Amino acid sequence: MRLTREDDLVDWLRRAAPGGDRLGDDAAFLPAAGELAISVDQQIEGIHFPAGLDPAWLARRLLEVCLSDLAACGARARWALLALAAPPDWHHRRFLRALGDACRRRRVELVGGDTASAERVGLALTVLGEPVGARFVERSTARPGDRLWLGGTLGAARVGRHLVGLGARPEGRKLRLPGDFRRPERVARAARRAVRAHLAPRAQLELGEWLGRRRLAAAIDVSDGFALDLARLCRASGVGAVVEPEVLPRDPAVTLLADRCDLEPLDAALSGGEDYVLLFALPRSARPPAVLACRAVGRCTEEGELLLAGDRGELHPAGWSHLG
Amino acid sequence: MRLTREDDLVDWLRRAAPGGDRLGDDAAFLPAAGELAISVDQQIEGIHFPAGLDPAWLARRLLEVCLSDLAACGARARWALLALAAPPDWHHRRFLRALGDACRRRRVELVGGDTASAERVGLALTVLGEPVGARFVERSTARPGDRLWLGGTLGAARVGRHLVGLGARPEGRKLRLPGDFRRPERVARAARRAVRAHLAPRAQLELGEWLGRRRLAAAIDVSDGFALDLARLCRASGVGAVVEPEVLPRDPAVTLLADRCDLEPLDAALSGGEDYVLLFALPRSARPPAVLACRAVGRCTEEGELLLAGDRGELHPAGWSHLG
Repeated sequence: MRLTREDDLVDWLRRAAPGGDRLGDDAAFLPAAGELAISVDQQIEGIHFPAGLDPAWLARRLLEVCLSDLAACGARARWALLALAAPPDWHHRRFLRALGDACRRRRVELVGGDTASAERVGLALTVLGEPVGARFVERSTARPGDRLWLGGTLGAARVGRHLVGLGARPEGRKLRLPGDFRRPERVARAARRAVRAHLAPRAQLELGEWLGRRRLAAAIDVSDGFALDLARLCRASGVGAVVEPEVLPRDPAVTLLADRCDLEPLDAALSGGEDYVLLFALPRSARPPAVLACRAVGRCTEEGELLLAGDRGELHPAGWSHLG
Repeated sequence: MRLTREDDLVDWLRRAAPGGDRLGDDAAFLPAAGELAISVDQQIEGIHFPAGLDPAWLARRLLEVCLSDLAACGARARWALLALAAPPDWHHRRFLRALGDACRRRRVELVGGDTASAERVGLALTVLGEPVGARFVERSTARPGDRLWLGGTLGAARVGRHLVGLGARPEGRKLRLPGDFRRPERVARAARRAVRAHLAPRAQLELGEWLGRRRLAAAIDVSDGFALDLARLCRASGVGAVVEPEVLPRDPAVTLLADRCDLEPLDAALSGGEDYVLLFALPRSARPPAVLACRAVGRCTEEGELLLAGDRGELHPAGWSHLG
């Protein structure tokens, strides 16, 4: 007997997706033992990405954004479930094939989902992970005196979002840039780096695993902006922070392109958002291995304020909100 | 320090939602022991419900539709995660308060979520449950000779969807009907019943728990239409089925209103969809307790066909697809 297009999709996923053999019942069954971390994130057309964006890029972005949450918890990703709403003539298969491939590379099983028709593409991915170490990493365990670290540079995604607004787009594996950013070559290189930071972020899984094995780490992923996510970490832990703006690792693309994009470089770094690097606190006796290229950017304090070092005033927890 | 509107929502949920104390990290942490069932379902404005529908009704519908999947697996619901995309001026709090209340009544903890801005409301709820019995109920365990049962009546939701298309709407706890359906009283009563079946379905949790304690049940929930979901159950089990149309429990609202709604009564029952009753197979020696008001509607056969009893030909697995 022949069923519906949704059944076709499920059949195809059962064959093609990692974990597809768990599909086919009203729910998927997971062999959970011990604690699980679970998180959901969305990508909405017109808000998180422009209409017409290649579904394969979108699939990879959706997964990495979700995995970044698990990385911040010191969790190893195991399973994912997709809720997909899109116009009937959208490229469902291209999207699902790319998502399946991305899950396979990240050793995540795609165990369930729901498809629906909608005028605009809306995607929600739920991810589940197991603790890497004895327990998960939380936001609430930073202590006064801890050193604050960042797992990567800030601001490139903000510049990339601006460039995508100006028309930068993927074409296959490559990127087409707006006319003003095609030369000189160092500008084009920085622009491509920024657009990739925005459209193709990479969750810091390796760093998350390292943190997951520490007993005293506190962490968050920088999704809504360094200043705002630092405020969340500090509030959850009941501490303040002093940050040294000079040592904040601004992405080279920010330094080179902020002017051309009419962005204030420090703002792009502090509040740009969507950096998907880990911000974490460690006791002064600990430091991440050099190969993970982390930078110390400040320290936790007793007072519940966020300050810029050297009496340069308060750090305001502004950030980029998907909520409008 | 004051954060964003999203942080306000999280704060409010932490205080107000059952399970809110698990909110606040990048992921929620669940104390899972043994197998878990996990499922996701969506409600999209303009597809599953009309624009402007009271968010409180929408919240309850979203949860029940999801719980119906768990009921079909013999799972007891434990946790839920919400992905909410809506215009910034939507009634987020009314929706979240109703979802929190509905979760509390169903003993489900709302442990996480993500909010985003969007032009139209799109909701995805992920639910997790634990097995009631020694293992979950699957679709694939029906055997030739098993009796097929239905946990409730069919077709009312199809009539209700039609009435909502004609303008039927909730007003507070009550329903406003289109002019043609306001009298006589028995028509109004049937119309309200149909609209409630569509907008306020109830997952058959009690029946699901009963099935979860049986060793030999196979089950599915009728979400896309009796014929289509029966086809799925049979395909998964490698059996056929013979169904007796006379004993199919058509809802009284179908009998009374199908003509006025230009619907073919048998079609509404067989393919209307969104009934959210359980369809299940049991060995002939077993029968559900009378209090659960189930009806035997046919039997499983060796041949891989779906037939109407009495040589009345094939049952075509047509149904209602959200996929367009």
